[in-house]
Amino acid sequence: MPYISLGNESPGILALFEYRPETAKPLCELAEVLLRGQSTLSRGERELIASYVSSLNDCSFCTDSHAAFAAAQLPGGMVLVDQVRRDPDGAPIAPRLRALLRIAAAIQRGGQEVSTQDVATAREAGATDREIHDTVLIAAAFCMFNRYVDGLATSLPDSPEGYAMFAEVIVDAGYMASIARAGTPG
Amino acid sequence: MPYISLGNESPGILALFEYRPETAKPLCELAEVLLRGQSTLSRGERELIASYVSSLNDCSFCTDSHAAFAAAQLPGGMVLVDQVRRDPDGAPIAPRLRALLRIAAAIQRGGQEVSTQDVATAREAGATDREIHDTVLIAAAFCMFNRYVDGLATSLPDSPEGYAMFAEVIVDAGYMASIARAGTPG
Repeated sequence: MPYISLGNESPGILALFEYRPETAKPLCELAEVLLRGQSTLSRGERELIASYVSSLNDCSFCTDSHAAFAAAQLPGGMVLVDQVRRDPDGAPIAPRLRALLRIAAAIQRGGQEVSTQDVATAREAGATDREIHDTVLIAAAFCMFNRYVDGLATSLPDSPEGYAMFAEVIVDAGYMASIARAGTPG
Repeated sequence: MPYISLGNESPGILALFEYRPETAKPLCELAEVLLRGQSTLSRGERELIASYVSSLNDCSFCTDSHAAFAAAQLPGGMVLVDQVRRDPDGAPIAPRLRALLRIAAAIQRGGQEVSTQDVATAREAGATDREIHDTVLIAAAFCMFNRYVDGLATSLPDSPEGYAMFAEVIVDAGYMASIARAGTPG
């Protein structure tokens, strides 16, 4: 039961997007650029970082929705997403992605938690400055999205299929479509 | 010394805006809507929330810049901003703003930290649903901005006057101007 009257029954952040379109627009644009815009990190890798940070923040809606978006865009599918969530150090991923996930986990704890060594390890594993930048901003952005979704006590979808339906929209049409079709899953 | 090569000497988030204009645009639009757009919370009150959350996150650049923006737009000036930062419960502010600052502090700790009682107290003190919503999103957004600025180890301005100069730009022209004039303070 959300803390405020949102005037709609949509789950998670979709309810907030419908409630306040003025803030929904820049929030969706940020997600679109970061998670789907031009990058040497694949869309699946970026969604994996988003879902991983959301799991560290215990945000069910963001963890499960971005897990669905990652699974739909990674060769390893949901099996890999679950492995990374449970044990990022043991999951079968390249050293570069593992090092970026370590930076993302540091950001989740706080801005001062990223060490020179974390950055050096990522660079040795082949990460570029742009990839390090985008990983920091993706992790920081999900520290915002997670707090926004849970801080107003938004609802979860009625069934897990809601996330899969939402994934189809995002993978096909991108984040701006989630404003237009905010009422879709549930 | 920033962790990555930003290609400019600007302080704090301004360096990141210059480095990555694609993400700077939605980030500035979000700040503009939340901190300066139409609201029953004054611009000074909203900047005070931003500076307070940044101080809880120990982010010097965001704390001091938004303190300058708040002081320039609040009758109580920097004396009030300092009082709120030191002791929000004892500062001479209205119960509504005090209750909203308490919600902001909860968000800083985590999305699940906001209680039904925090929201009820704010509502009893006269806060509207929209004001509660915007307080949650301002606090959440600064959990992002603070991590972005510190997670990449950006520089501080050369002197404290940098913040006052930055405040003039923001108060006069708004956050979108900080993209165009990113090199101004320092």
